[in-house]
Amino acid sequence: MVSGALPGFRDFYPAELAERTHIFATWREVAHRFGFVEYDGPPLEPLELYTKKSGDEIVGQLYNFVDKGDRAIALRPEMTPTLARMVAARANALRKPVRWFSIPQLFRYERAQRGRLREHFQLNMDIVGESDVTADAELLAAAIEIMRLLGLGPDDVRARVSDRRILHGYLLAAGVPDAAFGGVLAVVDKIDRQPRDVSEEKLAALGLGASAVRAVMDVPEQTSLASIQALNVQGGEAAVAEFSRFAEYVEALGGGEYLQPDLSIVRGLAYYTGIVFELFDAKGELRAICGGGRYDNLLKQSGGPDLPALGFGMGDVVLGELLRARTLMPAPAAGLDVWVAFGESAGVSDAMRVSSRLRARGLSVEYALGGQQLSRQLKAAAAAGAREAVILGAPDVAPDEATVRRLDDGHERRVRLDEWIDEAGPAASARSPTHS
Amino acid sequence: MVSGALPGFRDFYPAELAERTHIFATWREVAHRFGFVEYDGPPLEPLELYTKKSGDEIVGQLYNFVDKGDRAIALRPEMTPTLARMVAARANALRKPVRWFSIPQLFRYERAQRGRLREHFQLNMDIVGESDVTADAELLAAAIEIMRLLGLGPDDVRARVSDRRILHGYLLAAGVPDAAFGGVLAVVDKIDRQPRDVSEEKLAALGLGASAVRAVMDVPEQTSLASIQALNVQGGEAAVAEFSRFAEYVEALGGGEYLQPDLSIVRGLAYYTGIVFELFDAKGELRAICGGGRYDNLLKQSGGPDLPALGFGMGDVVLGELLRARTLMPAPAAGLDVWVAFGESAGVSDAMRVSSRLRARGLSVEYALGGQQLSRQLKAAAAAGAREAVILGAPDVAPDEATVRRLDDGHERRVRLDEWIDEAGPAASARSPTHS
Repeated sequence: MVSGALPGFRDFYPAELAERTHIFATWREVAHRFGFVEYDGPPLEPLELYTKKSGDEIVGQLYNFVDKGDRAIALRPEMTPTLARMVAARANALRKPVRWFSIPQLFRYERAQRGRLREHFQLNMDIVGESDVTADAELLAAAIEIMRLLGLGPDDVRARVSDRRILHGYLLAAGVPDAAFGGVLAVVDKIDRQPRDVSEEKLAALGLGASAVRAVMDVPEQTSLASIQALNVQGGEAAVAEFSRFAEYVEALGGGEYLQPDLSIVRGLAYYTGIVFELFDAKGELRAICGGGRYDNLLKQSGGPDLPALGFGMGDVVLGELLRARTLMPAPAAGLDVWVAFGESAGVSDAMRVSSRLRARGLSVEYALGGQQLSRQLKAAAAAGAREAVILGAPDVAPDEATVRRLDDGHERRVRLDEWIDEAGPAASARSPTHS
Repeated sequence: MVSGALPGFRDFYPAELAERTHIFATWREVAHRFGFVEYDGPPLEPLELYTKKSGDEIVGQLYNFVDKGDRAIALRPEMTPTLARMVAARANALRKPVRWFSIPQLFRYERAQRGRLREHFQLNMDIVGESDVTADAELLAAAIEIMRLLGLGPDDVRARVSDRRILHGYLLAAGVPDAAFGGVLAVVDKIDRQPRDVSEEKLAALGLGASAVRAVMDVPEQTSLASIQALNVQGGEAAVAEFSRFAEYVEALGGGEYLQPDLSIVRGLAYYTGIVFELFDAKGELRAICGGGRYDNLLKQSGGPDLPALGFGMGDVVLGELLRARTLMPAPAAGLDVWVAFGESAGVSDAMRVSSRLRARGLSVEYALGGQQLSRQLKAAAAAGAREAVILGAPDVAPDEATVRRLDDGHERRVRLDEWIDEAGPAASARSPTHS
């Protein structure tokens, strides 16, 4: 007997699966409200789909192997290359802008770290074919709406937003040479997490003068629209104007309270071309909930169509941690509407017939599969979390009648069985109001 | 650019994904009605999880490899070993009978055949911990209820049912030696698909005498409860009585019209211990839609708990083929409730504010992300399949009013914007009535 799942992989028992379903249903509901349609690709793809985009060094982090047909393949570590491949194949036929979402399971073979998972599910929402900044606002507003629908307010989650082009203009104006750019961004990325003098030494080592070092060290201070608008940004003026429009639009879309301009947000260098954003828990205790931005060159670089694009990924793991920490993860719905029990003058076939009629009305119904005493059946009904039990064939009950017992308070009433069945409906609470 | 998915793998564009969602939603709805709860396991498992159950010969059909931690692993080809592993780990704590379902994607590396897929999704429904035949009836009734909810009637789908123990008793009574059993079942499995004389020759080669050969050739004639009840079944009398009860229960559960006793149904030899069943399209043009039965020894053989169990697998591929052939696959719902358009005296920010309010009411809403003429916006609304367009800031419309246009017939009406928003609700048709 194999005793457990592979290291880094999760078993989803019903309680955990219900939590996953809560997150997925919310993702689908918000995607639906924003007019996004769902797609999916294969969990296995040709290895070169990833090496073409990310270089051979990515192979060290992949579940990759050679299949029995001598193909180099990999379990998908991210969804964007699949999206690029699928959009490219039908680029002309698709209505623009494309609003697509997917909830792939993604895989990374990372060196074993305690508690670190090797798989997660990730909502991917992407807009392809729209260069205007309205699309950037629309996309972030969708990510924020997910937070709101999950019960996470602006005190729980912040949407930190930057623009690659503004940062570039600011660093240029501060005298940072283009060649030092990559190195400087790596320092900015860690600037909050390492001692100030370590950052300053690294910047000096990159050839920056004292005033340029000061300018870089000031990047994390740029956390308001006003301060960003006041910056000297060589060649980045249009980007600042666009960023201001972006903030106005996010406000119009209802996400303003969550918005936190922050020029120090650094994401994949070779990847993003404009506005980038991350959603974080406001206490800063967890890793990012969500990250994304505009990647206008990526589809073309991948050999696909030359279409502007933007998107984000939001994983289920950090989001689940935050929901549990804020006690916002709902308890799994008991689900069962009715338990059909049978006493002396009825049999399991009677219970089956009643169950079948109730189920045809959309109710969730169980009955005792093996023969059991009525008292044991009612115990089983309670253990199953049923809302009600209907008791057939109890003593002193007419053949066309039954007893209905509410299982929370034990209240019983006599009903005409046919009438009661015809009026039975599923508990409102057992139905999630989500689009699936 | 990698031009397509790997051979045998599917891309799910939105139209195909909507079909998959229709099938999944129906699976989940019926599982819910029957009191089954969802679980999931990892798509990667230790290779030995499969070789322990099926022997080393299964490796030739698997996507298996050695990971970077030197573990022999495989992409799951079936769900039952994962189920056994998960139930075993919590066998004492779980309420019995366990009613669990899952919708895993499964993988098989089969020799390339035209059009043959290497992945599919498969509903798995299992009951663990109940030996009574009521459980067998309950399980088959659930499979049948899925057919019914998808629109497939008894003229479309037949549930062919047999019992391993009855067939055994019948063959024993006919003088088939125990040693020839496996070979005889292999012949029975193909008896409808190969010439009569080929079957007869194979049976003779297995050492069967003329009367035993005749008895085996008669197996496919046993297609009614009455004929099975009339058989001489050495040691199988209790199984026949149970089979009769089973048929009565399936009838009570509403599945009687679909039921087709058929002693020639042969499924995995080492696996099933009692009643076995398969769902087939009534025309016999497709492969099986569903197969399952009772496997009382499997959990224990896998090193797990000694619990009786039964289950079935139902794939998405053949089912999808049948639904399309019967034109029962619904067209993807347009989904979009409202397109928010804006004329001369309104801007995209106004459209965003209205969109945000409509979305908060659960509606699916789009607007033109880039600036566009009103006429182009309305064309886009129609192309998007929106139900209605609300037009803000058109000439001669008061600031607190708007024009609402039905997009199917072009009917327009003037509305007070705030009132209209407060009363807006999602289209009933855009909501699937399913539990998710």
